[in-house]
Amino acid sequence: MATFVFFSVNRTAQTTARRCFISHSNGLASTGHLSSFHSSSVRRWTSLPGSRWFSRGTGVRFMSQGTGAGRSAYGRTRRGALALTGAAAAAAAAVAGFMANASHFQRAEMASRVPQVAEEEREGEEGDILERCRGFMSPPVTDVEVLQQRKGEMCTRMEMLIMETQAEFCKALQKVDGGTFKVDRWERKEGGGGISCVMQDGKVFEKAGVNVSVVFGNLTEEAARQMRSRGKVLKGKDGKLPFCAMGVSSVIHPKNPHIPTVHFNYRYFEIEEEDGSKQWWFGGGTDLTPIYVSKEDAFLFHNTLKEACDKHHPQYYPDFKKWCDRYFYIRHRGETRGIGGIFFDDLDSPSQEEAFSFVRSCARTVVPCYLPIVHKHLNDAFTDEEKDWQQVRRGRYVEFNLVYDRGVKFGLATPGSRIESILMSLPLTARWEYMHEPAKGTQEAEMLEVLRNPKEWV
Amino acid sequence: MATFVFFSVNRTAQTTARRCFISHSNGLASTGHLSSFHSSSVRRWTSLPGSRWFSRGTGVRFMSQGTGAGRSAYGRTRRGALALTGAAAAAAAAVAGFMANASHFQRAEMASRVPQVAEEEREGEEGDILERCRGFMSPPVTDVEVLQQRKGEMCTRMEMLIMETQAEFCKALQKVDGGTFKVDRWERKEGGGGISCVMQDGKVFEKAGVNVSVVFGNLTEEAARQMRSRGKVLKGKDGKLPFCAMGVSSVIHPKNPHIPTVHFNYRYFEIEEEDGSKQWWFGGGTDLTPIYVSKEDAFLFHNTLKEACDKHHPQYYPDFKKWCDRYFYIRHRGETRGIGGIFFDDLDSPSQEEAFSFVRSCARTVVPCYLPIVHKHLNDAFTDEEKDWQQVRRGRYVEFNLVYDRGVKFGLATPGSRIESILMSLPLTARWEYMHEPAKGTQEAEMLEVLRNPKEWV
Repeated sequence: MATFVFFSVNRTAQTTARRCFISHSNGLASTGHLSSFHSSSVRRWTSLPGSRWFSRGTGVRFMSQGTGAGRSAYGRTRRGALALTGAAAAAAAAVAGFMANASHFQRAEMASRVPQVAEEEREGEEGDILERCRGFMSPPVTDVEVLQQRKGEMCTRMEMLIMETQAEFCKALQKVDGGTFKVDRWERKEGGGGISCVMQDGKVFEKAGVNVSVVFGNLTEEAARQMRSRGKVLKGKDGKLPFCAMGVSSVIHPKNPHIPTVHFNYRYFEIEEEDGSKQWWFGGGTDLTPIYVSKEDAFLFHNTLKEACDKHHPQYYPDFKKWCDRYFYIRHRGETRGIGGIFFDDLDSPSQEEAFSFVRSCARTVVPCYLPIVHKHLNDAFTDEEKDWQQVRRGRYVEFNLVYDRGVKFGLATPGSRIESILMSLPLTARWEYMHEPAKGTQEAEMLEVLRNPKEWV
Repeated sequence: MATFVFFSVNRTAQTTARRCFISHSNGLASTGHLSSFHSSSVRRWTSLPGSRWFSRGTGVRFMSQGTGAGRSAYGRTRRGALALTGAAAAAAAAVAGFMANASHFQRAEMASRVPQVAEEEREGEEGDILERCRGFMSPPVTDVEVLQQRKGEMCTRMEMLIMETQAEFCKALQKVDGGTFKVDRWERKEGGGGISCVMQDGKVFEKAGVNVSVVFGNLTEEAARQMRSRGKVLKGKDGKLPFCAMGVSSVIHPKNPHIPTVHFNYRYFEIEEEDGSKQWWFGGGTDLTPIYVSKEDAFLFHNTLKEACDKHHPQYYPDFKKWCDRYFYIRHRGETRGIGGIFFDDLDSPSQEEAFSFVRSCARTVVPCYLPIVHKHLNDAFTDEEKDWQQVRRGRYVEFNLVYDRGVKFGLATPGSRIESILMSLPLTARWEYMHEPAKGTQEAEMLEVLRNPKEWV
């Protein structure tokens, strides 16, 4: 269960693997209606230390789909780039609801932002792409050669960031749990794919999922409508709007009710318009769902996020904290899902470089936000009643995710989505008790009070 | 937990109890903006055998809201009738999604129906209203005096039927379980109320809920839009559409994985138009969700329903069976929720009398459809693996109910709904395993095969 699985392609999606990283003469590459580009570059990965996922073959052949005549999602067509076929592709739902996570809430007012982070630019991006890939949980979705060729582009920089975030977080969790993530690499018929890392029934974690997806294609009618409803003026060529969407998302449900559940998601979206210009934006957030109130944990979590935000703009934390409380609200219960964190979307200013730099700062907080809390409560004793309360809160988590979460809703409604990646956010177990109401003065009632009246923690 | 609770009014709904059946001088009756009618009728219930719910007072005072000038949902205003205040009331969502259960699927073609059931008319309705009420789980939602006054009307006949169905089913379940239902009587601020019977963590049943609701008011804009989208031409007076909706619904989740989950719902809807005429229709259905395939159980269940249907029209069973398979479909999984049964909506022909007679036949099958199956498997042994599979199927049940069920969706979206009654259909416990897929040739795989390809059982 906890071993790396390379080409565990979603059985039901009838996908045809179209690019492969490591050579297999099993017909995975370049079949069907898509033409493929076989790179002449061949690298040997086998003898690299710490690179278990390079060990399956002796030779590596890079393949990428698309022809010179293909229409690129990136504005230009280049050798080896991910080119799209003309067929209208279903939107990005395979990404665990990626773009649909976009919020209809009013956008935070950021007009007065002062860029402060130029010096942090490209920090951590110096290394060779190939070298950096070695630390990943799996080969990236996009061919390494393609990434190398367009090293400076935002798509590449973001894909490297989300792969790094996945690897960093998974490894930190593995270390504390002792278990190993199952790594599923899946492809999306319409373009792109993802890497789902799931650890289930571990020592510490009941269910831990960390998902990366990089998808592209043409926006569906429904998705374009959604975009427009969010105020985006989109002019497609021949009615087509090529897009590229990518993100990393994660939900961790621990066993011990004193260790909170955490969720994060960082994503990037690009749409190419008629004249070849691109609209782009970032979204994301990290939020915590404790079962019991710990002011100390809440402070650590929020303060870590605040510090990351403050490096970029003093309004980011207060605005995105509010947005988070509003987004993760279970309306029919009159409760938030947890104690929040930050949530933002449609971030397209002050510049692409600075927006990316902010997202990178956030992505780099996922370990320091959460792991100290896990370690602190690792050996906390708990009662059956505390476990029951956790299970009731898990039920609420399910309610939010299935009823309100735009990403999940969009994903479930989109044909060809990878359901298992979308629903990996659901806990292993949950409970619904009729008329459950904690007795006054209990710690359970204290938690509920906080969920009903979101607090400032920093 | 398992005792009768009379005036357990939903704490969060800020309801004001406006009618009470048994006298309490606690200010429950006739407060706030609603005028009330105090009936002079006083009956004594205390010494009646088998009527535990009559035992709380020595005198009974009937009260009903409304004034002579009130606008009746029933076309006429009469002494003691449930009169509506002018305020636009929220729609019927408090009814556990009652009317929203209406289907957008094409209506079954029933043009050629031949009425065959005139002789069954009013069967079981001969007794005195008061006498019949004594067998109920709680006083009915509508004052007994009001019911007596309008004895012949469909609203009364249906309310009596749903109360009887609730009582009959609850008592049969109590008998087999040994436990007792908790009875919550709740009122809806906008008009009407309900009786929720829930047994949790019993010997046989993990969670059993049987809910009655009788609500009235004016259709909300949203509800009227929904009605119109279903092809109903509605002409309101001054933009108002008084309605009355009532139904009984139930979901039973047993502990033993060899005893299937059952769900049923029978409902009636009435809307008053500008000219005082009424549109009315019935809806309902009963469906079974086994964890393991048993052809024998499936035959018994479907055949009992078929026999009830066949008494009324030979097309009812085949059409409503198909409708059921289509309605209880978890699209993102490509599976039905269970092995179906019957489902119908918008039934307004060949006559009100005959439609009611059909619904009554269906309501009377809930015990013979299900109880023999419960008894058969009562002592079946089961393994941990079988329990796990049950929990995974419970997870799918949650997915259907929260993502697709129109009743639940409508209820959750409607302010003032009684959430606990809507979500009492959720199991006590559920489970989500990443990439769960039963091994070929197992009984779990056999079940999945049936869910992926609905079968004819009769």
